[in-house]
Amino acid sequence: MRQDLHGVIPYLPTPLTETGEVNRPVLARLCDHLIGAGVQGLCPLGSTGEFAYLTRAQKAAVVETVVEAVAGRVPVIAGVASTATADAVSQARDWAALGADGILGVMEAYFPVSDAGVVAYFTALAEATDLPVTIYTNPNFQRSDLSLSAIETLSHHPRIAYLKDASTNTGRLLSVLNRVEDRLGIFAASSHVTVAVMMIGGLGWMAGPSCIVPRQSAELYRLCRAKDWEAAMALQRRLWAVNEAFARHNLAAAIKAGLTLQGFEVGAPVAPQAALGPAECGELAALLRHLGAL
Amino acid sequence: MRQDLHGVIPYLPTPLTETGEVNRPVLARLCDHLIGAGVQGLCPLGSTGEFAYLTRAQKAAVVETVVEAVAGRVPVIAGVASTATADAVSQARDWAALGADGILGVMEAYFPVSDAGVVAYFTALAEATDLPVTIYTNPNFQRSDLSLSAIETLSHHPRIAYLKDASTNTGRLLSVLNRVEDRLGIFAASSHVTVAVMMIGGLGWMAGPSCIVPRQSAELYRLCRAKDWEAAMALQRRLWAVNEAFARHNLAAAIKAGLTLQGFEVGAPVAPQAALGPAECGELAALLRHLGAL
Amino acid sequence: MRQDLHGVIPYLPTPLTETGEVNRPVLARLCDHLIGAGVQGLCPLGSTGEFAYLTRAQKAAVVETVVEAVAGRVPVIAGVASTATADAVSQARDWAALGADGILGVMEAYFPVSDAGVVAYFTALAEATDLPVTIYTNPNFQRSDLSLSAIETLSHHPRIAYLKDASTNTGRLLSVLNRVEDRLGIFAASSHVTVAVMMIGGLGWMAGPSCIVPRQSAELYRLCRAKDWEAAMALQRRLWAVNEAFARHNLAAAIKAGLTLQGFEVGAPVAPQAALGPAECGELAALLRHLGAL
Amino acid sequence: MRQDLHGVIPYLPTPLTETGEVNRPVLARLCDHLIGAGVQGLCPLGSTGEFAYLTRAQKAAVVETVVEAVAGRVPVIAGVASTATADAVSQARDWAALGADGILGVMEAYFPVSDAGVVAYFTALAEATDLPVTIYTNPNFQRSDLSLSAIETLSHHPRIAYLKDASTNTGRLLSVLNRVEDRLGIFAASSHVTVAVMMIGGLGWMAGPSCIVPRQSAELYRLCRAKDWEAAMALQRRLWAVNEAFARHNLAAAIKAGLTLQGFEVGAPVAPQAALGPAECGELAALLRHLGAL
Repeated sequence: MRQDLHGVIPYLPTPLTETGEVNRPVLARLCDHLIGAGVQGLCPLGSTGEFAYLTRAQKAAVVETVVEAVAGRVPVIAGVASTATADAVSQARDWAALGADGILGVMEAYFPVSDAGVVAYFTALAEATDLPVTIYTNPNFQRSDLSLSAIETLSHHPRIAYLKDASTNTGRLLSVLNRVEDRLGIFAASSHVTVAVMMIGGLGWMAGPSCIVPRQSAELYRLCRAKDWEAAMALQRRLWAVNEAFARHNLAAAIKAGLTLQGFEVGAPVAPQAALGPAECGELAALLRHLGAL
Repeated sequence: MRQDLHGVIPYLPTPLTETGEVNRPVLARLCDHLIGAGVQGLCPLGSTGEFAYLTRAQKAAVVETVVEAVAGRVPVIAGVASTATADAVSQARDWAALGADGILGVMEAYFPVSDAGVVAYFTALAEATDLPVTIYTNPNFQRSDLSLSAIETLSHHPRIAYLKDASTNTGRLLSVLNRVEDRLGIFAASSHVTVAVMMIGGLGWMAGPSCIVPRQSAELYRLCRAKDWEAAMALQRRLWAVNEAFARHNLAAAIKAGLTLQGFEVGAPVAPQAALGPAECGELAALLRHLGAL
Repeated sequence: MRQDLHGVIPYLPTPLTETGEVNRPVLARLCDHLIGAGVQGLCPLGSTGEFAYLTRAQKAAVVETVVEAVAGRVPVIAGVASTATADAVSQARDWAALGADGILGVMEAYFPVSDAGVVAYFTALAEATDLPVTIYTNPNFQRSDLSLSAIETLSHHPRIAYLKDASTNTGRLLSVLNRVEDRLGIFAASSHVTVAVMMIGGLGWMAGPSCIVPRQSAELYRLCRAKDWEAAMALQRRLWAVNEAFARHNLAAAIKAGLTLQGFEVGAPVAPQAALGPAECGELAALLRHLGAL
Repeated sequence: MRQDLHGVIPYLPTPLTETGEVNRPVLARLCDHLIGAGVQGLCPLGSTGEFAYLTRAQKAAVVETVVEAVAGRVPVIAGVASTATADAVSQARDWAALGADGILGVMEAYFPVSDAGVVAYFTALAEATDLPVTIYTNPNFQRSDLSLSAIETLSHHPRIAYLKDASTNTGRLLSVLNRVEDRLGIFAASSHVTVAVMMIGGLGWMAGPSCIVPRQSAELYRLCRAKDWEAAMALQRRLWAVNEAFARHNLAAAIKAGLTLQGFEVGAPVAPQAALGPAECGELAALLRHLGAL
């Protein structure tokens, strides 16, 4: 079931109007812009896309808009996140019906769940549609984490094809790779040194910051694929300030601020999340200018 | 805006059929049973009620069923929980339209939120309807917590009338009381020694375990109100094993297991949460028998 | 082996001269002062006594000074804290030889230790001398904690006679009491609402703050013993601001600041810990004045 | 003050006899063995060396033994760890007098310490002797961590020359390097993918596992220095199982078990730490055999 998913796959923010409607024209224009800048895929409804803050109707509007705007130029990997198995299955079926090319699967939790529950959730999600599934773990913000043994079990499912890890622990990715390399492709997040992840065998990265430095990200990916590690690391070091900025702020607020500076009217994050203040926007603008992204 | 909310207010579980429908007859019968056992209020859609696992339609069915079944005999305090302000406001208006007597307000979070964001969320919730609001903090399971200073600010809102605290830190309740006593009534949770909370000035408790030991809980409250502290503490010590059992398990799974033993067909918790296994059910049955609750 | 240990047992700070010598005259005068104020015991080398910052020679000087100053008027419970069993045993033997009446046993850790290791450590400590041992748990500052099952096992040792718990979780104390009441006496810490702990069956409290409000603490204990819970809680609520102040600051710094204000030249905490600044000292002075302790 | 410290610098375990004496002949033989295998330095009294479990006299015996055994063949970087500034200064002076070539500085804590306190502690340590200091942070086991801003401040001290980081966060090392590269050399720990750290500009690694795979570690370092990243990563992936084993166990117990298998009678870790059991030793033996290290 491994497709050829690889490269830079930005997490799209969710542009909303003042009345809370998905701003479809802005979202479509952003998809065009990112594809033009050379990214290899697009991921709506990730953390940066504020999946945890949107209604089901808003989510459906996002997937529909992105699938239409992309029109098959790159794969669209749509986020499914829930605490409940049945709800996750229902989302996945809806996104498949809307034309998504793959599912990014997130498991949320309120009460702790055993490994068996985690495996059951993701297995049901993989069986909900015939799309390949990327399992996603973000121990900073979720209350459940994917253990090595749960990952190993899930890797044997024919439609569970990729893992995206948003910890800061690069060694954990190596542990995963040593166990499942021929069965799961690994993607880094903005919390990782992506060149290091590429070097240990990663396929690319799924990350919010790539939305605002897409050309630079595509170039970084090209250097990694060419195994020009010295040049890749030199570029990585310059770009790292973006990763640091995003770790410092609310991810959605930071991406939305950066895109607003670049002329995309994506609006503010969903309340009660706060937009970046003027000083923070000023710092971000200076950083983007320094990197040639403004 | 302080009504006379007080006493034992059980968090109702959400009975679901195998196909995920709210089991209205069972829920209604449970309301009757608890009122008959002497509780002073009922709270649908708390943690024990699995608010984090239900769809909006399921939640509405729960509130509607409880309001109808209770028919004004005791106050119905309906839970509102969201990550997003607008969604919380919308839930509160719906619950008010369905006839709830008060709102239990929970703030969920994915990304961290500042104190200003927390205050804005609860203020908007208090202004959504003319019902009194109980603010709720459960630092074990939520990613946001209510700071003392946020509580103090919120206590000045005329419709924010009560606080329910689900930490294990009794001293924190004393700190809250010393700051806001004339403005906020305090309720304990099953994580607290409730007699201790009553003694420092609490009004009662909102708790899942009271669903399965309702007569014993009502008697405990009576002893506290009579300031018969020795007898209250003796009963508290016997009942404490129930609190321990619920801390050890998934709350919803444990309450649903206990009620099933008592003849209420509440079903299993929402998947991927697991029901208690046979050994755990056996221990729970022995405990309930020992307390005269089976 | 249960002696009659009970009541208010302040953790003594360790007064040091500018050159790092134990200031014996100040420490002796403080012991006299506290006994005169009505405390029931004294505990050198607790957390507040900076056991984690002192050399072995400084510790021995502290125990020697306190034993001599107290001269049998109240029991002296001397702290033993180490990561290593052999070192703990050696300290206990030295403190016994110097005349201590009991041992307060703390286990420090760098690497995690299994419950079996915890039990082995405290058992060796109990067998090192013929003094009764108080086992001590402070999950905020130590890397090891005493599980309920380790406490239960240890409670069967004839010389392990008391438990002092410095969590904020009052319910945990009730869980302990329900398991071991006839074998272990329970002492509260300043992180607990001490009246609540007395009410559930505690023997008293071991706490730093009692050093600076000793008369008030002794009065609080008298009210609890008389079961005059209303008056006790009223006094507790006034005194709670002291507990809050100590939770906010470095414990040793706060106690040393308070005693300095009261005329005891105890000096600053061991560097790199910082003394309280002028503003913090001013707040503390106002608080002590308000309570009649300055 | 930057010397040419670089390469593989194993943390030496502390071999003790049954009566707790430092086993000097075994320690000396181990130094010979490691130097013969190609390591570039030796570090007694790191975490693996159980600094947190040894008396001052044991520590001095360790430094003396290692300095004598090494006889100038490679630099000896001796660990200083304390909660108290004066004690750290005193240790550093003693280790300098015994002939150490550098100091590895660790700050332990019981109560939290501000950044100013952290900076004061390490500054005093750097001024205690004329040896270069490696500052060390291990957020998993210490209660204090070095903030980026404290590291930046300390990097300006002429004798603070290196940083060893034992987090799992490779990105944090890049953040440090981007701020202080010309002033602080960076060393990885066994919790990092060392090839990744070398690639971003690290000088080498200080780590316990290198004690039991010293030849393989030296070869890995050679490949990194030759920028033969593909071969380095292939070897890294084989060796990673050793890092995983050490993360799973108590570090000292695991290293001591491995060396015992290799014929060095280093004994058990200091009680109450437990030695590895037979099953764990069997797994470790299989792993070492697989890597050609047994």
